[in-house]
Amino acid sequence: MSATSATPMPPARLLLELLTDAGQTLSFCESLTAGLAAATFAGVPGASKVLRGGLVTYATELKIELAGVPRELVDKHGVVSPECATAMATGARQRCSSDWALSLTGVAGPDSQDGRPVGEVWIGLAGPAGRSESIAAFTSQEQVRLAELVRRSPLEGRQEIRESAVQRCFQILIERLTGTIEPG
Amino acid sequence: MSATSATPMPPARLLLELLTDAGQTLSFCESLTAGLAAATFAGVPGASKVLRGGLVTYATELKIELAGVPRELVDKHGVVSPECATAMATGARQRCSSDWALSLTGVAGPDSQDGRPVGEVWIGLAGPAGRSESIAAFTSQEQVRLAELVRRSPLEGRQEIRESAVQRCFQILIERLTGTIEPG
Repeated sequence: MSATSATPMPPARLLLELLTDAGQTLSFCESLTAGLAAATFAGVPGASKVLRGGLVTYATELKIELAGVPRELVDKHGVVSPECATAMATGARQRCSSDWALSLTGVAGPDSQDGRPVGEVWIGLAGPAGRSESIAAFTSQEQVRLAELVRRSPLEGRQEIRESAVQRCFQILIERLTGTIEPG
Repeated sequence: MSATSATPMPPARLLLELLTDAGQTLSFCESLTAGLAAATFAGVPGASKVLRGGLVTYATELKIELAGVPRELVDKHGVVSPECATAMATGARQRCSSDWALSLTGVAGPDSQDGRPVGEVWIGLAGPAGRSESIAAFTSQEQVRLAELVRRSPLEGRQEIRESAVQRCFQILIERLTGTIEPG
């Protein structure tokens, strides 16, 4: 390998370094990824200093009962919505007593869900000072590509949506911590 | 490929079929695997009929606060113990309102933890009728092999401990559901 082929640091590792330096902790609330984000983060050596844990809220009832998402919010906006993502992150941050929490909710397919298309994924972020927000994991163009992949190869497509959403949620918190992008 | 080289059904898929047929649900409480078991199960098409969700209790405090493991139990037996595994499963089953719950707690290394060696992993199982138990994920021989792998290649070894423990927890519930092994 030449020096020029050095691969960039994986997002999970960079995020762990940033949070370790800041002395801050992290938790997750996951629906479509069902624990993949927390497990990926835990795979980085030293994660135990930062990772508190998380909630896997696959069933809608658990978003309400475990993460404390208001039932009225689910009834009004559905579970695949920016509103639900924000509430999931806020709930996980409180219940896991962490400085930051990331949430993931979306449609991995093969079918659309509550009128939301395959590839629509929302990432919620809750942080210190009660700040919370939600961000679309993918651009419209990426969403179309992912939906097409699921149509051609459901298993592979579903896995790519999940893995890409996990990487994206790490990147979003990295951007917030480094000030690359101003909070919304 | 010849007919004799047919691969057996992956444990997660077989477990999903058995639980779907029984009309029963499943949840997880994960420490060292940090969501990998739930995420692996969610990767099987049709998992949403069975998977309720789970708790990722990486930090000791979350085993107590989220899963309801008694603090005295943790003080007396430690978090890597059959007693803690059973309590984690019991807590997840109750909090996630599922018929069955599987838990995982153990030492992925590279260092031992509270005097427990690398490769010691306990799987807890809680089921209908309040039955609960815990089982060592690995035999002494397997544990020695895994500890040696972690010593030689920490990242690879830690990942193998986690992935093997996840497969083992699926197998344990399959054995209980099919009566291959009588409950202890």
